[in-house]
Amino acid sequence: MKLIRFGAVGQEKPGLQLENGKRIDVSAFGEDYNENFFGDSGVNRLREWLKDHLDSCPEVSDQIRLGSPLVRPSKLICVGLNYAKHAAESGMDTPKEPVLFFKATSAIVGPFDDVVIPKNSVKTDWEVELAVVIGKKASYVSKEDALDHVAGYVLHNDYSEREYQIERGGQWVKGKSCDTFAPLGPFIATSDQIKDPNNLQLWLKLNGELMQNSNTEDFVFDVQTLVSYISEFMTLLPGDVISTGTPAGVGMGLSPQRYLKAGDVVELGIEGLGVSKQTAKAYQQS
Amino acid sequence: MKLIRFGAVGQEKPGLQLENGKRIDVSAFGEDYNENFFGDSGVNRLREWLKDHLDSCPEVSDQIRLGSPLVRPSKLICVGLNYAKHAAESGMDTPKEPVLFFKATSAIVGPFDDVVIPKNSVKTDWEVELAVVIGKKASYVSKEDALDHVAGYVLHNDYSEREYQIERGGQWVKGKSCDTFAPLGPFIATSDQIKDPNNLQLWLKLNGELMQNSNTEDFVFDVQTLVSYISEFMTLLPGDVISTGTPAGVGMGLSPQRYLKAGDVVELGIEGLGVSKQTAKAYQQS
Repeated sequence: MKLIRFGAVGQEKPGLQLENGKRIDVSAFGEDYNENFFGDSGVNRLREWLKDHLDSCPEVSDQIRLGSPLVRPSKLICVGLNYAKHAAESGMDTPKEPVLFFKATSAIVGPFDDVVIPKNSVKTDWEVELAVVIGKKASYVSKEDALDHVAGYVLHNDYSEREYQIERGGQWVKGKSCDTFAPLGPFIATSDQIKDPNNLQLWLKLNGELMQNSNTEDFVFDVQTLVSYISEFMTLLPGDVISTGTPAGVGMGLSPQRYLKAGDVVELGIEGLGVSKQTAKAYQQS
Repeated sequence: MKLIRFGAVGQEKPGLQLENGKRIDVSAFGEDYNENFFGDSGVNRLREWLKDHLDSCPEVSDQIRLGSPLVRPSKLICVGLNYAKHAAESGMDTPKEPVLFFKATSAIVGPFDDVVIPKNSVKTDWEVELAVVIGKKASYVSKEDALDHVAGYVLHNDYSEREYQIERGGQWVKGKSCDTFAPLGPFIATSDQIKDPNNLQLWLKLNGELMQNSNTEDFVFDVQTLVSYISEFMTLLPGDVISTGTPAGVGMGLSPQRYLKAGDVVELGIEGLGVSKQTAKAYQQS
């Protein structure tokens, strides 16, 4: 299944994108895509429920906004430098074990929402990433069992302010957590839909020009290794999101470096996970 | 007021600790201490409600477990190296601007719960800290307005695995996020109870021996500065917690270094915010 959430900001309802592209409203199922849903076999229960209710689900117009396809999770964990070429363009060594950092969950927005360039920011950058949605609590899980703890996969643009991240003292979280810096979606593909998460093409275009174009088979650490590794350091809860790192081609790695300005259009996609698109907007006091 | 939550893990109810030390159950108010409560003037509404309902609130026995005094927040943001002497003992420079990192909110436990030494951990350390609870959404707030966005203050022990934090590649979050590494409480003192958060005595004892003993007047960056600064990089939501850093006296700073072993008892307190106590326990597969 392809899980979507649709509607105005803060009022999203759960839905599905069907194989024929049609979107339907499944709010009659009575649950949103949150920790309880994922942790209590919601994907399987929804699949069962659909057998009797598919025909009565209202259609959702293409004109309606898509939100993040899951409710704000307990954490959004990111992996740094997980493609060797991207580590090189960032001037860093390929890591010996996964580099982890967090992104504030308040940064999560829908896949077609504007990305807001923070006040005084001069180095807002893009990062197409495959993100993993946890389906079952995970603590000290082995690599062999890791994929049993995954509910699905989702496209993520890990927007990053490089000055905040690198030049403002200390930890990366400062450049990763601005509002709108984590568009998720258009949908979560449940894990049965993705044959091998470690072999998916992914790409990103800036104003139509191809900037990132790679495959997750170039991962330094594959999805199984990441889930297992992270679960040694913290308990992963259902609905938590792990973003697996970005390939080469970010603005920081270009010569000269190139960063977003208002009006720029960023479009990105991953094989089997659809396409998202954000327009950069200058910060305005609300 | 002093907000508490009491009951078994995962089933906590909201309560209050009265000035005479008595604890009462305020679950009849109909709200838990979460984002909606803090964001919708819950503290003031609860105060009003009490005028008519105080006498009918059931007493809570001292035997009942205390949980974290707030529901899992959207984020737990920590400030590093915010006391000059602690920066020195960590072998780092006093920072020019606040150093920020996140702790997984899945690490939050009650003030008297055991702290679990992670599997294979050899460097689990303690850190008494003043934590700030956000009461009103904060984005680009000035220092002058910052305290208007604070609902209250709470005692926090920012447990830290130093090998995970420093020797395992990359960012500190890895050593900060293990389960049980964030005991909060015993209570949140609402901001009217704390005359000056930048002048509070704080201390920590290991097995009765005084290890940390300082005052928040030694902050490198005061509470106002921290709230304002962080709100430039991310939106603070009601209920979010900012932990303001620890003074000198952690195990990593001793010579020889000293870390927790099973059976160790850690007791800590802050003026006006009560005392908490954790016993260290070895990890056991559950």
